[in-house]
Amino acid sequence: MSNSPYLRLGYRPKFKEEVIATYYLESSLPLAEAAGHIAAESSIGTWTKLSTLRDKTLAKLGPKIFYLDNKKKIVKIAYPLALFELGNITQILSALAGNVFSMKVVKNLRLLDLQFPKKYLDSFKGPAFGIQGIRRYLKIYQRPIIGSIIKPKVGLSAREQAKLAYQIWKNGVDLVKDDENLTDMKFNRFEERVREVMKLKKQVEQETGEKKVYVFNVTAPADIMLKRAKLVKKYGGKVVMIDLVTAGLDNIQFLRQQNLGLILHGHRAGHSMFTKNPRHGMTMLVLAKLARLAGIDQLHTGTVVGKMEGTAEEVTEINLEMEEDWFGVNKETSDWEDIKPVLPIASGGLHPRLMPDLIKILGKDIVINFGGGLHGHPDGSVAGARACRQAIEAVMKKIPAKKYAETHLELKRALEYWR
Amino acid sequence: MSNSPYLRLGYRPKFKEEVIATYYLESSLPLAEAAGHIAAESSIGTWTKLSTLRDKTLAKLGPKIFYLDNKKKIVKIAYPLALFELGNITQILSALAGNVFSMKVVKNLRLLDLQFPKKYLDSFKGPAFGIQGIRRYLKIYQRPIIGSIIKPKVGLSAREQAKLAYQIWKNGVDLVKDDENLTDMKFNRFEERVREVMKLKKQVEQETGEKKVYVFNVTAPADIMLKRAKLVKKYGGKVVMIDLVTAGLDNIQFLRQQNLGLILHGHRAGHSMFTKNPRHGMTMLVLAKLARLAGIDQLHTGTVVGKMEGTAEEVTEINLEMEEDWFGVNKETSDWEDIKPVLPIASGGLHPRLMPDLIKILGKDIVINFGGGLHGHPDGSVAGARACRQAIEAVMKKIPAKKYAETHLELKRALEYWR
Repeated sequence: MSNSPYLRLGYRPKFKEEVIATYYLESSLPLAEAAGHIAAESSIGTWTKLSTLRDKTLAKLGPKIFYLDNKKKIVKIAYPLALFELGNITQILSALAGNVFSMKVVKNLRLLDLQFPKKYLDSFKGPAFGIQGIRRYLKIYQRPIIGSIIKPKVGLSAREQAKLAYQIWKNGVDLVKDDENLTDMKFNRFEERVREVMKLKKQVEQETGEKKVYVFNVTAPADIMLKRAKLVKKYGGKVVMIDLVTAGLDNIQFLRQQNLGLILHGHRAGHSMFTKNPRHGMTMLVLAKLARLAGIDQLHTGTVVGKMEGTAEEVTEINLEMEEDWFGVNKETSDWEDIKPVLPIASGGLHPRLMPDLIKILGKDIVINFGGGLHGHPDGSVAGARACRQAIEAVMKKIPAKKYAETHLELKRALEYWR
Repeated sequence: MSNSPYLRLGYRPKFKEEVIATYYLESSLPLAEAAGHIAAESSIGTWTKLSTLRDKTLAKLGPKIFYLDNKKKIVKIAYPLALFELGNITQILSALAGNVFSMKVVKNLRLLDLQFPKKYLDSFKGPAFGIQGIRRYLKIYQRPIIGSIIKPKVGLSAREQAKLAYQIWKNGVDLVKDDENLTDMKFNRFEERVREVMKLKKQVEQETGEKKVYVFNVTAPADIMLKRAKLVKKYGGKVVMIDLVTAGLDNIQFLRQQNLGLILHGHRAGHSMFTKNPRHGMTMLVLAKLARLAGIDQLHTGTVVGKMEGTAEEVTEINLEMEEDWFGVNKETSDWEDIKPVLPIASGGLHPRLMPDLIKILGKDIVINFGGGLHGHPDGSVAGARACRQAIEAVMKKIPAKKYAETHLELKRALEYWR
């Protein structure tokens, strides 16, 4: 197999007709030989010679391993577009992120990056809103969107949840969201929550003169998810959340295809099962690219400074990919075409003290989500909401938090509490 | 946090009212403290004290860490059933296999096992057919089901695919299946494939007097998947395949809810992204249990002897769980209730020589899938099909393969070719 029919070092990929996958690969076999197995299993081959595989098929559908870095264990493979069903995100995953991870010849394998030709991109809708669409809806153009997850994750009634949302909206928060554990529970029914929340949302918008949004978690099998998304729309809601690892990227795509006029908020619970090990699984970058393709408008991509993992380098790379109009591997030969940019969300363990660093690292085109760092404020959620808004105002005004806190009590108390 | 409100060592779980999760946990913190973070994040807590969390909620919804093994790093947590939406498989995954993997305090975390109370089990349909239903349909009661994946994975036209299926059915194969990379392709349209295949299926059933099935890969976003499943039904097909990692367990559940009378075949491409590392991610056992709950009838669980990973111990444990009427953690206090048993599928790198070992290890209640080990036969697919059937006949007749090969040429050639 060392002379794999797929080994074509030096081949110049056709960026307009091929999908390019970049893998990190550890094997007991030499890299070229192991890469041959990966290329075969992810396309038209298998572990033995086939009587049914003709030269014509090989020439038309065979992938090409065009780059190997033995030191860094990097493999780049170009796949003819005909291997993939247009607009079917599950099919490309089954091929390029499927059986290849299970092969005995593989010690570790990581899908680092994917690059798609225009024709493939064109078969997806991408975000309906994206960064500019969300900013226009909220009428917030110059600062991060201030978000808050209702805490405790579950346990409040629909009415309590709506009241709490009202209080924190009223005190400076733009976006309030369900936790990922909360769907339709005995003590907090989905429809009742939507109804109660939307009533108070209208009220608070009138009182503050600001646009507000609530993110309802509709994560469920597709039919139930769609039913709940339509309920949100019916009651005048604008944003729904889908957990894209547990419900699948196909559910994002399915919901996007419905054209409901809703902003799709992508949560990513469980991604660390396969993104955490730097030598195995898939990068968050690939997951984020696929989510963008599928139609997510805003996506959890990491905080760097919070309770969840993710280095500054990694998170900023993902965010840049989400925000910019180029597409990795080869910037000159491929871009995102008509697919709108995605708004990154920083979420997990954030509190006011972390704001200067967070915004410095991740920029202002971002949703900043506070959970415990708001509802855990020593003086309660109202004070917490004010402190969070004040912390972000300070950064935007380029005033050190400590100085701003001199005239802003809630921020002062937060800075004292979380050291 | 070392005195986590969730630490209740020695607590006796209420198996009828609680979901039990068993984790392997590595942390820089002491195990009890790290377990407290896991219990909090997967239920009602967060990283800081909350003004909004009341004692009532804590008492009613708080999880209980009832078992710790510091040496083996094992943690067992009992979660009140009220934390979970009944019949929503994505929601329980977001909670128990979600953010917990991303926490900075976690070095490695693996969800080893899950146990559900009757009320939770009752909210799912489980398999419509299961082992006995599939055997009844095929009228095969005493031996493994002989399956074959069409190879090359992709590249044949619909007509070529149907002809190849006919030939191998005719020569001893019971079940023929699409590869996971094949859906609706330019050179092999889904509907055309179904039509062509079903025509020849009828013919071969008449000619051989045997029942045959074809497994059509319907992996796609839910609406397209459903449309394709209905096409299969319309043309008289009986089995559809879903890739349960890339399309999500919710798609299995969604399709099962439609009650189409189809056998659901679960492929698992990509599972090794999170099942491979023994210290992180999720076990195949948990994935298999959830797939059974969602309604899968037959499931790829490993081969031990083939090209894919999986030890004998691991694969037999999963298969036993799928086949038996008990349910892990605590056999006396919980079982599968009315949920039917699942037929395991062995697939990947199998060929005739491996049959005695395979059946000895995994038993006869199994689908044995041949891909390259059939189509790669030195005399072609027809000879390959015969060799595979002969190899299994030999095992069932308790005749050594080598001896059986003396009077069965195709088996003889296969044994000579794959050594």
